[in-house]
Amino acid sequence: MSRTTPSRYPKRAHHDAATIYPILDEALFCTMSFVSEGRVRSIPQSLLRLDHALYFHASVGSHFFRSLAGLEEVCITVTLADAIVVAKTAFNHSINYRSVVLWGQPEVVDDPAEKYAAFRALTEKMVPGSWDYLLPMTEKEMAKTMALKVPIAEASAKIRQGPPSDSENDAPLWTGLIPIQPQRGRPQPGPEAGGIALPRHLE
Amino acid sequence: MSRTTPSRYPKRAHHDAATIYPILDEALFCTMSFVSEGRVRSIPQSLLRLDHALYFHASVGSHFFRSLAGLEEVCITVTLADAIVVAKTAFNHSINYRSVVLWGQPEVVDDPAEKYAAFRALTEKMVPGSWDYLLPMTEKEMAKTMALKVPIAEASAKIRQGPPSDSENDAPLWTGLIPIQPQRGRPQPGPEAGGIALPRHLE
Repeated sequence: MSRTTPSRYPKRAHHDAATIYPILDEALFCTMSFVSEGRVRSIPQSLLRLDHALYFHASVGSHFFRSLAGLEEVCITVTLADAIVVAKTAFNHSINYRSVVLWGQPEVVDDPAEKYAAFRALTEKMVPGSWDYLLPMTEKEMAKTMALKVPIAEASAKIRQGPPSDSENDAPLWTGLIPIQPQRGRPQPGPEAGGIALPRHLE
Repeated sequence: MSRTTPSRYPKRAHHDAATIYPILDEALFCTMSFVSEGRVRSIPQSLLRLDHALYFHASVGSHFFRSLAGLEEVCITVTLADAIVVAKTAFNHSINYRSVVLWGQPEVVDDPAEKYAAFRALTEKMVPGSWDYLLPMTEKEMAKTMALKVPIAEASAKIRQGPPSDSENDAPLWTGLIPIQPQRGRPQPGPEAGGIALPRHLE
């Protein structure tokens, strides 16, 4: 059985880019896992997707990060929790979620243009509309940062949406959804922002 | 070097239960990773912590889940994203987060009392105050559900909080935090909740 064919709830599984990409694009964090000396290791990472690859970054001083580029494959997961599914029984409670599991082989990005494009896209993912407002990225900053690329070799999404499923029971109990999808809050100025207007892209 | 001693930002690392437990308790999802036939696999899972162990559940029909109990160890990660850290340069942007990486050996929970306590605590974690409102869990539901326990053998938390750090630059640009911590939204009644009052614990 393929690693991306789930044994339970096969109807929740999806393998198309149109389903998988938006989940990867919405998530700010993923977990990257790999085998090191026969043992499993995992590390949370911020992520960016461009085309059919994920990009990661770290200081060029990170020996750990550099060692990832020597691995045959890493497994990357993303999970977005959308709602608590409240049923009449604890048994039928659930969570509405969208998740992706994928595998790929990490490689260091050597091309400066590709690296710059990834940093720019990551910044725009985190704060849309901000790249042109910020101080331009310098050669020195580029040199201090390593980019790692993981072309997606195999991926699947698993999704649960919709109301609870305990309609067989007619007890008069409330059922429904409690939304838990994160919303961006009001920007909070830092200690140095005194007197500086909130830029339009953050309003 | 220990797997839980980070090579970068060692000041962000914590190993005490007082730091680690609240992160595990707040997270609705974790990623569980393990080695299967020499290759890495990961799967998103909802989680519950009780004392120094995590609990998971699945249908007794899940061969995959049962096979986890034969593993020597799994690696589990949790990540909570708190805020986008907006700096004057893309380079100094960051994310305020709290994450945990831990290892342990999964075991099937055979004791019915321990299993029941875990289901009850998981339900109360998802919807505080709801257990006594719901239909009581039946013997049949208990029998249909398998619980897996992962005693925490080794764990570390990594945390970044606070404002951006590009104070060396005096350009008059806005800096600060954009909160992204999820808030629970207004409960949305399901198709069967017509005419049934929202219970007090959900108000």
